[in-house]
Amino acid sequence: MRALIIGRFQPFHKGHLYMVSEITNGFDELIVGIGGAQYSHTFENPFTAGERIFMIARALQHFVDTRGVKLYITPIEDVNRNSIWVSHIESMVPPFDMIYTNNPLSKRLFEEKGYQVRSMPLYNRELYSGTRIRELMVNEGEWKQLVPKEVVEVIEEVCGVKRLKEIVMDDK
Amino acid sequence: MRALIIGRFQPFHKGHLYMVSEITNGFDELIVGIGGAQYSHTFENPFTAGERIFMIARALQHFVDTRGVKLYITPIEDVNRNSIWVSHIESMVPPFDMIYTNNPLSKRLFEEKGYQVRSMPLYNRELYSGTRIRELMVNEGEWKQLVPKEVVEVIEEVCGVKRLKEIVMDDK
Amino acid sequence: MRALIIGRFQPFHKGHLYMVSEITNGFDELIVGIGGAQYSHTFENPFTAGERIFMIARALQHFVDTRGVKLYITPIEDVNRNSIWVSHIESMVPPFDMIYTNNPLSKRLFEEKGYQVRSMPLYNRELYSGTRIRELMVNEGEWKQLVPKEVVEVIEEVCGVKRLKEIVMDDK
Amino acid sequence: MRALIIGRFQPFHKGHLYMVSEITNGFDELIVGIGGAQYSHTFENPFTAGERIFMIARALQHFVDTRGVKLYITPIEDVNRNSIWVSHIESMVPPFDMIYTNNPLSKRLFEEKGYQVRSMPLYNRELYSGTRIRELMVNEGEWKQLVPKEVVEVIEEVCGVKRLKEIVMDDK
Amino acid sequence: MRALIIGRFQPFHKGHLYMVSEITNGFDELIVGIGGAQYSHTFENPFTAGERIFMIARALQHFVDTRGVKLYITPIEDVNRNSIWVSHIESMVPPFDMIYTNNPLSKRLFEEKGYQVRSMPLYNRELYSGTRIRELMVNEGEWKQLVPKEVVEVIEEVCGVKRLKEIVMDDK
Amino acid sequence: MRALIIGRFQPFHKGHLYMVSEITNGFDELIVGIGGAQYSHTFENPFTAGERIFMIARALQHFVDTRGVKLYITPIEDVNRNSIWVSHIESMVPPFDMIYTNNPLSKRLFEEKGYQVRSMPLYNRELYSGTRIRELMVNEGEWKQLVPKEVVEVIEEVCGVKRLKEIVMDDK
Repeated sequence: MRALIIGRFQPFHKGHLYMVSEITNGFDELIVGIGGAQYSHTFENPFTAGERIFMIARALQHFVDTRGVKLYITPIEDVNRNSIWVSHIESMVPPFDMIYTNNPLSKRLFEEKGYQVRSMPLYNRELYSGTRIRELMVNEGEWKQLVPKEVVEVIEEVCGVKRLKEIVMDDK
Repeated sequence: MRALIIGRFQPFHKGHLYMVSEITNGFDELIVGIGGAQYSHTFENPFTAGERIFMIARALQHFVDTRGVKLYITPIEDVNRNSIWVSHIESMVPPFDMIYTNNPLSKRLFEEKGYQVRSMPLYNRELYSGTRIRELMVNEGEWKQLVPKEVVEVIEEVCGVKRLKEIVMDDK
Repeated sequence: MRALIIGRFQPFHKGHLYMVSEITNGFDELIVGIGGAQYSHTFENPFTAGERIFMIARALQHFVDTRGVKLYITPIEDVNRNSIWVSHIESMVPPFDMIYTNNPLSKRLFEEKGYQVRSMPLYNRELYSGTRIRELMVNEGEWKQLVPKEVVEVIEEVCGVKRLKEIVMDDK
Repeated sequence: MRALIIGRFQPFHKGHLYMVSEITNGFDELIVGIGGAQYSHTFENPFTAGERIFMIARALQHFVDTRGVKLYITPIEDVNRNSIWVSHIESMVPPFDMIYTNNPLSKRLFEEKGYQVRSMPLYNRELYSGTRIRELMVNEGEWKQLVPKEVVEVIEEVCGVKRLKEIVMDDK
Repeated sequence: MRALIIGRFQPFHKGHLYMVSEITNGFDELIVGIGGAQYSHTFENPFTAGERIFMIARALQHFVDTRGVKLYITPIEDVNRNSIWVSHIESMVPPFDMIYTNNPLSKRLFEEKGYQVRSMPLYNRELYSGTRIRELMVNEGEWKQLVPKEVVEVIEEVCGVKRLKEIVMDDK
Repeated sequence: MRALIIGRFQPFHKGHLYMVSEITNGFDELIVGIGGAQYSHTFENPFTAGERIFMIARALQHFVDTRGVKLYITPIEDVNRNSIWVSHIESMVPPFDMIYTNNPLSKRLFEEKGYQVRSMPLYNRELYSGTRIRELMVNEGEWKQLVPKEVVEVIEEVCGVKRLKEIVMDDK
């Protein structure tokens, strides 16, 4: 059985990790779709799809090794046209039996095409939030404890904090 | 050290497998970029990117398990604009140290951006050829021995031979 | 003589109906261009182009039958590039003698290409407003009296109110 | 019950007319999708989508009036990506119960999405062929008898024969 | 030595002129890239790329003639994808040795590709500002003294003030 | 009076130079539109738009200096949609009074929009031909005498002959 989750993962954090851990209790294969794959170098989307693949692959290596879970990580470009969204995803990932999402629009679009949709496992979304982590990065706060240590490594390898700080500087 | 190879893999065959095997003698991480990711359901490109991810992940599972190779498989849409091709790929894959290609245009484009490019390891390209395998599929020839057995399984799961035969039928 | 009106028609309401009725007093052929044709499943644009064609064709059937008006309904995708907007529309609709619009940008763009532009016939825009009707749908208000009964039927056939409510739900 | 047929209709000819006549024996509503809607001014696709809407609407007026058939004519842009083709069409036309096509790829794509597909009613495809009619136009042959008289009128109104002859001239 | 500056130039004003004057003290060839080339007819981007080429070429004619500076003016369409931005620009302009920009994102993107980036020469950005000049145009303020006289001529030739006023009118 | 010519200029050769010389006998301002601006690194289109701007600007410097001709050189991306071609060009170039072209499709499209179109001045098209010059480059023939010496310089600066030879190599 193969499950699909989709997120932007800017960056991949411990909330995502917990979610993956919960889902892979029920499924032995997991597809991680990286949304907004064409975007990078903005506050909302600082990391490229390639960098996000890198983060997630490293952070989930432990799962793959210890649980024998089969993992597929694939970038998915936004198409800005809801009516073709599900077909677009279907063409970019291996066949799947279940999609997990909390996004009402995604839920609706997949249900209209006949898919079964499950809610994401709950985690502390106040604490683990991409937006909050990016703000902490810009303001030199304590962000490292909120993401897996492999993600810290990748962000440091690509000088991610410096990139983010420069991008949000005012043009004056 | 991380190497990148790019191909359309329509389908992934034993020539590709040999090539991957040779390259992973020298690199412990390999990125497989699936070109023409947006195309499917034609004679040239019968399989979706998702189906090709599925084939390759399964066919290379043995490598991952026995050699401890780290594998990244990612779809790459054609952009039909050579001047941005390298940047496009860079944004869709993890950082890489070396690119393997036999395609003169790819070689040239990566070299213009300062990359080192190596030639693909040699294999019998008359025997193992995507075009030839697809023709054998259409004509009920002996194609199964030319691809890894996991690829046969995926093609059967998605009724790939039937799809290919129907697509090439004449519209009369 | 053939007139063109363009709108998003999310949904087609009695204000639109009145407008069409007024215009077809002077023209025996009317082209209805459905703008933003590629959008759907958002609060601003809940219905697909196909669903909007369906609404309008049914709601205007009476006009076609009783007045002998010739009607052309055609979806028009947004191109997000004002300088080609008029040419884009010209290529997607039958030749026309007059365009009706209250949108200052549309008016300007058509006038720059040498078209005569007329203002839309007046109706109660506070009462009949797409935005207001969509808000009433979400909040279970009295929206049905604001649209032709055929439009109510189409919206019910496609479960439009449920769709709209689900789309606007908060992702928490 | 609503049927869908898709064609390029370059131009709409008597073979198409016969086909529509046969289909509307079984269906009281017919959607005519005009493929390749963004193309025009080439030998393969001389007429704009708007001009083709115009031809078809006029040529089928008699059917609408005498048989009480409900007709929807809508342009459909090519997307050059087979995996989203069916979703693209679904979003651009009213809901339909049946699709008629002789194109093996279209047949395959609709069947993969669970649609029932029927073959087009037979007509003399040697005699009534878009390519042949366009060649006759260029070479001043007897093309007018192969299309409905309303189509002749539209082609003359837009100076279609002159356009076609000029386009195919050699650039020397 | 060839320098590159990129701006939207909506419109080209005396602040831009001062900047060009400063830069051409150090470089004998200057490439002026016109960003957002596909946009026009909005408050943010009222003028087409062609009109902006026209303004800049005329306003800088004096420089070309008296200083012997070589000037290249070229439109650059936005691509809405930061990872390919630098490659896109490289393909649209002659080779350059230096880029001048105050935009933090542009600075970052060019530096990631190994370019040396310099800050724009300082000028009074409160006084000379595209936004402020467009507001003055709409409100019949004193905008003409803020732009070179050749720019006034081009704006009058294309009826730019009338266009801007009409575009910002309310649709009521 | 301002004239427009459009070509791909792969590369700009002495036939083009002659043509420009003839046209600027009648017009004191000339716009050179570089078609297919997004293409490069193929046999048909080896040079980027930026490189072609560079060639043309240098090769025509003499005209600008000695005849006092005003020159505008601008890249124009292909849009693959004939119905918007003229509007696309209009938005990318300064206003023009006359277009010169020998291409029957271009001629037709501009005439449909009400433009006056003139035929290109005649030159020896057997001798001066982009295709022939590119073939001579690949086969080490005498191509240098067919292009202005400034074009030779630019091609050498960007290693254009090496690029072309590599691109056309067989992938075996």
